[in-house]
Amino acid sequence: MHLSEKNKKVLEQALESLKNRNYFSPFPENPKAYGEDADGLAKNWISQIMNNNYVALDGITASTPYIGEEVSPFLQVGIGVRYPVFSTNELIERGNAAQQTWSKVAIETRVELLMNSLDRISNRFFDIAYATMHTTGQSYMMSFQASGPHANDRALEAIAMGYQELTRYNTSVNWVKPMGKFDLTIEKNFNAIPLGLSLVIGCSTFPVWNTLPGLFASLVTGNAVIVKPHAKAVLPIAIVISELQTILKENNFDANTVQMAVDSIAVLITKELAEHTAIKQIDYTGNSAFGNYIESLNKVCFTEKAGVNSIILDSVKDLKAVAGNIAFSASLYSGQMCTAPQNIFIPATGITTPEGTVSYEQVVSAIKDAFNGLVQHPKAGPGTIGAIQADTTYKRVQEFAAQFPQALVASQHITNEEFKDARIASPLVVELTADNLAFNEECFGPIVFIIQTQNTAASLQLAYNLAKEKGALTCGAYTTDAQTMSQITEQMNSIFIPVSFNFNGAGFINSHAAFSDFHLTGGNKAGNASFTNAEFVNKRYVWVGNRYMN
Amino acid sequence: MHLSEKNKKVLEQALESLKNRNYFSPFPENPKAYGEDADGLAKNWISQIMNNNYVALDGITASTPYIGEEVSPFLQVGIGVRYPVFSTNELIERGNAAQQTWSKVAIETRVELLMNSLDRISNRFFDIAYATMHTTGQSYMMSFQASGPHANDRALEAIAMGYQELTRYNTSVNWVKPMGKFDLTIEKNFNAIPLGLSLVIGCSTFPVWNTLPGLFASLVTGNAVIVKPHAKAVLPIAIVISELQTILKENNFDANTVQMAVDSIAVLITKELAEHTAIKQIDYTGNSAFGNYIESLNKVCFTEKAGVNSIILDSVKDLKAVAGNIAFSASLYSGQMCTAPQNIFIPATGITTPEGTVSYEQVVSAIKDAFNGLVQHPKAGPGTIGAIQADTTYKRVQEFAAQFPQALVASQHITNEEFKDARIASPLVVELTADNLAFNEECFGPIVFIIQTQNTAASLQLAYNLAKEKGALTCGAYTTDAQTMSQITEQMNSIFIPVSFNFNGAGFINSHAAFSDFHLTGGNKAGNASFTNAEFVNKRYVWVGNRYMN
Repeated sequence: MHLSEKNKKVLEQALESLKNRNYFSPFPENPKAYGEDADGLAKNWISQIMNNNYVALDGITASTPYIGEEVSPFLQVGIGVRYPVFSTNELIERGNAAQQTWSKVAIETRVELLMNSLDRISNRFFDIAYATMHTTGQSYMMSFQASGPHANDRALEAIAMGYQELTRYNTSVNWVKPMGKFDLTIEKNFNAIPLGLSLVIGCSTFPVWNTLPGLFASLVTGNAVIVKPHAKAVLPIAIVISELQTILKENNFDANTVQMAVDSIAVLITKELAEHTAIKQIDYTGNSAFGNYIESLNKVCFTEKAGVNSIILDSVKDLKAVAGNIAFSASLYSGQMCTAPQNIFIPATGITTPEGTVSYEQVVSAIKDAFNGLVQHPKAGPGTIGAIQADTTYKRVQEFAAQFPQALVASQHITNEEFKDARIASPLVVELTADNLAFNEECFGPIVFIIQTQNTAASLQLAYNLAKEKGALTCGAYTTDAQTMSQITEQMNSIFIPVSFNFNGAGFINSHAAFSDFHLTGGNKAGNASFTNAEFVNKRYVWVGNRYMN
Repeated sequence: MHLSEKNKKVLEQALESLKNRNYFSPFPENPKAYGEDADGLAKNWISQIMNNNYVALDGITASTPYIGEEVSPFLQVGIGVRYPVFSTNELIERGNAAQQTWSKVAIETRVELLMNSLDRISNRFFDIAYATMHTTGQSYMMSFQASGPHANDRALEAIAMGYQELTRYNTSVNWVKPMGKFDLTIEKNFNAIPLGLSLVIGCSTFPVWNTLPGLFASLVTGNAVIVKPHAKAVLPIAIVISELQTILKENNFDANTVQMAVDSIAVLITKELAEHTAIKQIDYTGNSAFGNYIESLNKVCFTEKAGVNSIILDSVKDLKAVAGNIAFSASLYSGQMCTAPQNIFIPATGITTPEGTVSYEQVVSAIKDAFNGLVQHPKAGPGTIGAIQADTTYKRVQEFAAQFPQALVASQHITNEEFKDARIASPLVVELTADNLAFNEECFGPIVFIIQTQNTAASLQLAYNLAKEKGALTCGAYTTDAQTMSQITEQMNSIFIPVSFNFNGAGFINSHAAFSDFHLTGGNKAGNASFTNAEFVNKRYVWVGNRYMN
């Protein structure tokens, strides 16, 4: 299989952007770009798949049991999709067999097939969007963009990085060393031997976006993959796996090169799979405790765990715009993004603006207004916050609300006109002094702390200490002072935390763009992986050189 | 500091060879290329430094204590060089201070300075050679080549790989995303933040060759380094460190960017250093037990541990040439190379040659003749086997000799005319049947096993099992059959062991050439590092991207 002209061109652009870090995406993020019928067809599809068996997977027999435990956060009823359950032994046996063949497929063939699979997946973006909504609670638009084009972008990024790394050496050379009176000649070849069967463990909030990088990185480097989705967020990734299996079969490859392992919250199989000697590498997204367990297995692993993200307010050009930007960042998908800010540090002495110093109280008031304005907006409110994915997240908000009855902004149950039964809790915003330790933990979900500090230096120190201890995916900072900007950059970067300065308008610190932003640095406690640096593909195979003399 | 035209050209060639895997070395391996005086001057130098304090290091005060425990394997007396001893606290404090400045030096400056340091080191090749002889027991020629040009080649390889990786992305981009009615513009910069203070732990047999890759990989990526040589092999690397400190000072950088930590066999400080929280990354060469300990510290580490290397004999074109090649590989530096073959697997049914099948006994006899011919050759013998570095190695040979009194070739004390007192033990060659488990362990030093097997398939299975369990740096195989060649390649490569086929003449499986051969694959139990793949430099820093909006 050779690279088609179309794929060759896209791959070239991808490689160019990977180097230049400029904007690139072959998959439009505007749903309207995909035709008028697409949404309606997907609505039909989702209503038909609900309460049915998901049979679009390879290896199902008459005796295959089914299981399904997903609950729509928008409907608060089980969606009733049941997935085929294969035993760990079945999965491993099939995976090992697929590994044998897939590992020997030429890199160009793998790239061509995987790039084509992205096109196929893009034909299902609307199905995936509805599946994402009704498992994660993401709004329609976020479901479409995060599980669709943005996830495909990250998959393409992994494919491009894999291609670049796997083609970086001559794979065959006639090595000639001049020895004075004669030449020593040795034929050599160099092979990137895939590491072996790969396990990709998904999370409940971003079942596609967080799964595709590891899935495609393993596939492009010649490894068969078992995807273990979160039991509560299976359907979106099931669609992806179906498309991959179909295209594999169409091209006479083993469909089991990608398999899905579904389990039940009551009887989880993740550890059984992760500890299996046949599993040689693991991708994981989820809580830190389980992530630490995965890392302790001494296998090659790529983890995205929890972190606590901070915003440091020092000085701004336009307070209202800044407050609005922060409120949106913290409210988007009800703070259930790993990149959502939790802690906002504000000096007791206030912040500088072009109009002079604005007091701490005025800053807090502006933020309060921004949260209320956004959340209570009849259309933007529900569209921004979506719904709460997990019971535990919902309960956490209630617990914090009870603990902080004097909250600056109370968590509210606003109405989503389309989904009256949606599990909704708008962000709880709580003011704290720096000696209150509540902000020193990740409080996953719509919980925001405003921490009054002595000054910006103190804010930085608090954000630094916390990020060092707990990790972080991002740090937002607002300052118009060049020296303060350098200090924040230097200190946060020294513990491998990236900083986003003065974000406003349509720029949000939550967003990490493929081909440009590294998602996670891999250097702090929020995880050891980075989408997509060279290591993210390089650790999935080993260069082995053989030498031949006559 | 910009790259000089000369260095630019060498770097380009290095990068070209890194990609093409072809032969490249800017440092001639023939001592004659370095001028007539060089050897004589070095002889003077070594005689003067013996029984003296080594004062060519930064940070020495009047109260600095000195220690030195090296014993020349050729003279079997202490060489009496004493090195300044700094406390762990001193080393860490100075290292941390140096890290602060060195981490901010531009990559081009680091490359220029480090490339210049290689030229300076090359001016000391003869000093280093004599220092290597009188600490490791390597012959003059091997001391010169391994610690001189070949080590410098590996250092240059690490510099080139570091430069390539650190310049692979645009470090600053104006990211513009079309949003329909407007463009979203974000300024971004990308910084490779060095991981932090580096510890490089040397070994007693290759104190320079095995230290330079990690040392230069850490330096080029912006990390200060503490080198902890083996207490019995300090002088060769001390010279390198002196040259680095001198060039650092000449260019107004902190000399302590590279420090040397010397200890005593009675009071080792390696664990104290390795476990210190300030040490962020560790390079290690040595035995597997300590290597496993280093890996268990959960720091970034690069290990080269022990392995057991096999040769599989199936069919040959010229038995005598093959036997001679094997005897040389196993005798070179008395088997004290990590790449030396230990086990030779031969089918009981004999091997195929153009003249027909040669019986097992005839093959064994040819090997016996080859060993005896080489070892007893008045000049080639001593020049090949050198001397035994460690007491324990010498004792091991005596123990095995006692255990196998019917050895095929006895270990002999041959005479080295130049060094009558040299600690010498020529290779002990022992025949075993496959059920004798003696060959299943690394027996470091001049101990070779010939194992009679049922057939080549059995030989392969034994070599495979052993390499899987214990790791290996290389595998030699002799076969004229294409299918057998594929089978051996496939099976050994599947556990990340490279195979060298039909080596003869001046090609020896022990030799791994910089820019072409990966030394270690990093994928088996012989170690997690590979000189020099991308990971060998990439893990020493973290990419962090900062973003700026107006």
